Amino acid sequence: MSKTIITISRQYGSGGREIGEKLANTLGIPFYDNKLLEVAAKESGIGKELFEANDEKNPGSLLYILGMQYSDDMLPFNHKLFLAQFSAIKKIASEGPCVIVGRCADYALKDFNNVLNVFIHADIEKRIERISKELNIPDKKANEVIIRVDKQRMSYYNFYTSQKWGRAENYHLCLDSMALGIDGTVELLKKFVELLEVRD
Amino acid sequence: MSKTIITISRQYGSGGREIGEKLANTLGIPFYDNKLLEVAAKESGIGKELFEANDEKNPGSLLYILGMQYSDDMLPFNHKLFLAQFSAIKKIASEGPCVIVGRCADYALKDFNNVLNVFIHADIEKRIERISKELNIPDKKANEVIIRVDKQRMSYYNFYTSQKWGRAENYHLCLDSMALGIDGTVELLKKFVELLEVRD
Repeated sequence: MSKTIITISRQYGSGGREIGEKLANTLGIPFYDNKLLEVAAKESGIGKELFEANDEKNPGSLLYILGMQYSDDMLPFNHKLFLAQFSAIKKIASEGPCVIVGRCADYALKDFNNVLNVFIHADIEKRIERISKELNIPDKKANEVIIRVDKQRMSYYNFYTSQKWGRAENYHLCLDSMALGIDGTVELLKKFVELLEVRD
Repeated sequence: MSKTIITISRQYGSGGREIGEKLANTLGIPFYDNKLLEVAAKESGIGKELFEANDEKNPGSLLYILGMQYSDDMLPFNHKLFLAQFSAIKKIASEGPCVIVGRCADYALKDFNNVLNVFIHADIEKRIERISKELNIPDKKANEVIIRVDKQRMSYYNFYTSQKWGRAENYHLCLDSMALGIDGTVELLKKFVELLEVRD
């Protein structure tokens, strides 16, 4: 069995979640996407729906706060949610190898030495095609959703990590998922993990 | 024999050139680093030393021009050098699979459909270690050289391509060369090429 913890950051519509799930199945290790929020809720005693409502959204953005019409005391509470999630990520990682998608897991696990940080991206045209099909919406609408979600993810990541989302140097490996397709990308990642573990 | 053209952009000291050369040997295809300048010189009739003096330096930067004390008419001439290089890259690529390091080859080959664009990076500490050993200079000096060379490369790339050097989305694959080491990185790239060619 694999001993590596793999974190996956991903552009919306790039297939990053699907790749993560297939990789976890291939390696026989647990997969955490929004299942992570359940762990954070259970550990912290805060309602899961609050984690869901604030998932990967930057609490520091004034525009976001105004847009959501939150009261001022929401700001520290959002930070509290982030810290509970951060602590859930560390707990999960200390239990053994797994795949974690999004939620600044790469940053939360900075002190772990068996972590492989991956960023998955794809051309905007391909992502529009995927999201348009998945949500059954027209291309124009899919484009708008992609831009909005990616802006939220970027803002959330940059705010909490003081790094830049999507800059190659933050990750061990960045991949255009359309170059090899979903299954080819999973195979390449599996090879990366094998080479990494032979090296240790 | 491989049919893919591989372009490698790289942070200074990341081992990108060495990885490119080893990959070319493994795949049995030609390798172009500054050998490319010879081709450009031969094709254009412009002296090779002029290509060397301006290699991967941004002609649009006023500070660079002032620093080099060039006369005003050097500006269009630098562009001429770039175009000659651009055309040499296309000529080389049209002759068959190869590995080309640096010089905006990814951008020059935008219209080719058998190109794999790679970016190689590594932690600054590891790069200082490599360059300090390679050039036999103290760590502090190595750090200065790395910052200067990377600034030149970034500026040259951003000026000519209107893309951002080192942003994951410009490349099919970005790799931290220290995660798997030089040989492991070569093996992973070989696997990528194999998966890519099986897919075609």
